[in-house]
Amino acid sequence: MDYKKQLEAYFAEVDEKCLLGLSIDCVIFGFSNNQLKVLVLRWKLTNEWGLPGGFVYKNESVDVAAQRILKERTGLSELFLQQFHTFGEEVRYNRAEISQKLNWPDPSTRKWPNRTVSIGYFALVDFLKVTPSVDFQTDEYRWMDVENLPPLLFDHNHIVEVALKTLQVQLSWQPVGYNLLPEKFTMPELQRLYETILNRPLDPRNFSKKMRALGIIERLEEQRRGGAFKSPYLFRFNKEKYKKALKEGSLAFT
Amino acid sequence: MDYKKQLEAYFAEVDEKCLLGLSIDCVIFGFSNNQLKVLVLRWKLTNEWGLPGGFVYKNESVDVAAQRILKERTGLSELFLQQFHTFGEEVRYNRAEISQKLNWPDPSTRKWPNRTVSIGYFALVDFLKVTPSVDFQTDEYRWMDVENLPPLLFDHNHIVEVALKTLQVQLSWQPVGYNLLPEKFTMPELQRLYETILNRPLDPRNFSKKMRALGIIERLEEQRRGGAFKSPYLFRFNKEKYKKALKEGSLAFT
Repeated sequence: MDYKKQLEAYFAEVDEKCLLGLSIDCVIFGFSNNQLKVLVLRWKLTNEWGLPGGFVYKNESVDVAAQRILKERTGLSELFLQQFHTFGEEVRYNRAEISQKLNWPDPSTRKWPNRTVSIGYFALVDFLKVTPSVDFQTDEYRWMDVENLPPLLFDHNHIVEVALKTLQVQLSWQPVGYNLLPEKFTMPELQRLYETILNRPLDPRNFSKKMRALGIIERLEEQRRGGAFKSPYLFRFNKEKYKKALKEGSLAFT
Repeated sequence: MDYKKQLEAYFAEVDEKCLLGLSIDCVIFGFSNNQLKVLVLRWKLTNEWGLPGGFVYKNESVDVAAQRILKERTGLSELFLQQFHTFGEEVRYNRAEISQKLNWPDPSTRKWPNRTVSIGYFALVDFLKVTPSVDFQTDEYRWMDVENLPPLLFDHNHIVEVALKTLQVQLSWQPVGYNLLPEKFTMPELQRLYETILNRPLDPRNFSKKMRALGIIERLEEQRRGGAFKSPYLFRFNKEKYKKALKEGSLAFT
């Protein structure tokens, strides 16, 4: 079956089995080695990039749909996907143009309404530890620099911006770093994680003071040896306190 | 026209002019004098209470819809409504039961799908400074204690819980209090606002230290005189810094 026929069959099924007018978009941030990236897919037979997304079955919660869609589109599973915003502007993009670019069926042949409201989810992973794979709609995936994205399909640049802003604000009240840093890390390594996500330098003294005040990291007796400079102390996350802070907000007034 | 006919006409218009399967629910928190309340409506000719909500026109953004719906249902306008979560569980409530309770048309006579995804918005106002009014679907409004709500219609108890949790977490990184306190206030007054929203006591020394470290309040030279105790200093918000903190998160790492 050629690709256009495949897409026709796919969208016929979507129109039949899914909630009409609703979609899910996933922003998968990848951090590794002081770089913050986002996972984008190149749509089959095009030079167009966009986020992994899809539709919600009639008998499926939106949270379950987000996990399923991410798995189907990229092979990734068991990520902590967090709903962050629903995009419901009157006109989010030019639907006819998108359909043409992506070889989708003519909108007039579909049951789908003129407008789609999309629920955004994001996750933050170590991009060296996960290996995406592509589905039938995708030629290629790539981890692109968040600060250096090309124009993406739909309103996906806007969706990435809102997700990044949410992640940055969450840094101020929720811990981040577990699964992104080695089990034992130095304070400068933790600081660089924060600096990378916030995209600006932080004062080392303030950073260290604030992080330690949160009570989610423990200083170990070990130091890292072998560098040219003074051996830095090693830290690790206190899992219990980290989890508690994830739930309750680590900077909440006590 | 009797009420049932009015409702039939209303829902016929909804099915024609609105995005199918999507709704908006508004959680209006009211604070005044150390009490935190939520605005609920009693559905016409029933003893059933619920949040003000409604539907999105085909040519209307969801943010604009939220403002319009709140205005239509309660008369309130120009509130800072913030989208906080989209509720998309597979089964949110028993639709047939709701239709019967509220004298809504039989679902089988409508174009509306079996399931509704609802976008939640919340706002925080001084409940003494606003005067809601009711629409044709409503017999009465009431400000009810957040901690003491009766079983509400739909999944509205759950929606209030999620909104409250969001508000509580926001306290840890975003300022609150402007428009809720008098222009000049004492530190204990500000603390009681936080304690009321968080629903737990806070340590006065820590609270004062943290609040002043945020840089959003200014101590005035005046003290409040006339009480039985030591005259407390008066404070006021620094509007510029308050606005900046609202945008950027007041506890963000600097």
